[in-house]
Amino acid sequence: MLSPIDFYFDFISPYAYLASRRIEDLALRHQRRVNWHPFRLGVAVVKVMGLRPILETPLKGDYMIKDIHRLANALGAPLTESLDLPNPIPPARLFYACCASEHAGALAKALLHARWAQGLDIGDEQVLCDVARTVGFAPEVVARALRDPLTREALTDATQLALDRGVFGSPTVVVGGELFWGTDRLWLVDQFLGNQGRYAPLKDDRLAALGFR
Amino acid sequence: MLSPIDFYFDFISPYAYLASRRIEDLALRHQRRVNWHPFRLGVAVVKVMGLRPILETPLKGDYMIKDIHRLANALGAPLTESLDLPNPIPPARLFYACCASEHAGALAKALLHARWAQGLDIGDEQVLCDVARTVGFAPEVVARALRDPLTREALTDATQLALDRGVFGSPTVVVGGELFWGTDRLWLVDQFLGNQGRYAPLKDDRLAALGFR
Repeated sequence: MLSPIDFYFDFISPYAYLASRRIEDLALRHQRRVNWHPFRLGVAVVKVMGLRPILETPLKGDYMIKDIHRLANALGAPLTESLDLPNPIPPARLFYACCASEHAGALAKALLHARWAQGLDIGDEQVLCDVARTVGFAPEVVARALRDPLTREALTDATQLALDRGVFGSPTVVVGGELFWGTDRLWLVDQFLGNQGRYAPLKDDRLAALGFR
Repeated sequence: MLSPIDFYFDFISPYAYLASRRIEDLALRHQRRVNWHPFRLGVAVVKVMGLRPILETPLKGDYMIKDIHRLANALGAPLTESLDLPNPIPPARLFYACCASEHAGALAKALLHARWAQGLDIGDEQVLCDVARTVGFAPEVVARALRDPLTREALTDATQLALDRGVFGSPTVVVGGELFWGTDRLWLVDQFLGNQGRYAPLKDDRLAALGFR
């Protein structure tokens, strides 16, 4: 196994959900594992970049709703109708309480799936308990995670570390110091990893599939 | 020929340059022509959406510079090193002075190419004359275009019409009331046009090329 790739995301991001369905297989193809890093996208967007939340941005907010539904359809991924954002702090605190476990990635994926495929409120403790149980974590783990100040601190620290690396969007893949923002750049991650960490002009079949031939 | 597709763009956008190299062939494959619509991206971003210009946005600005160079390399498109933005008003006024000509599309492409492949200052009248001449427009056309108040009005009107249709980014393709924002959604335009204006799950080869299989 080569060094892992870093997957930065926020539970409020349906694009992260779409990428979460794929990133581990993509990494494995290149003999990598995935390290999952929930961070606070809102801190990056509003505090650091000085922008509005996308859903509150005229024109772009409406477009995003359309775009994510089209993308989910194209990728064959189930997606709930409503794109109301969950409170991302409880699931992220739960994640950081469990991040040393080998099941942490499964937990991250299950939480994203619960919100974006099933429409569950992952800001709710009972929902977190139900989802956590499916990947082997007991309700006591959830109860402790939501009350332990260290999990809040871990999320704050993870957000700062992400920003320090230049991460500003969800999802972002970081490998070998290179950032790849967006579900729509996974093809570039794939090419980069398959090409010994170098960029090169695309082959014809990939150009054609991207609409460029 | 079926009804044309609308291509909205701003000359300040290197992503529009990349898409401009491809959009006509893509349209022709689906028996369409392209109508070119320069508009003021800055009006959309700053006045309507209330955002900062992307190059002035922390983290995202730096990332965009990297992203556009990687994308150009992947697509095999020449790109200048400097991403300084030209004054987009003179080339857009020139375009609207010529928009009834059958060579208007060639002019739009030549202007985008001049700035983004060759690094020329397309805000400069002499440069505009040189570029215009390569696609058959005389220097007098440029001189008139930059002084005729109607060309300024045409750009203002085009910007408002774009916004009224929901366009907020460059490039944006509009076909049959559907918007597709970004060079990285041309594959979806291609699929949509090839599927009688319907969306459908992607076939395996396209999924694979997008990094999703």
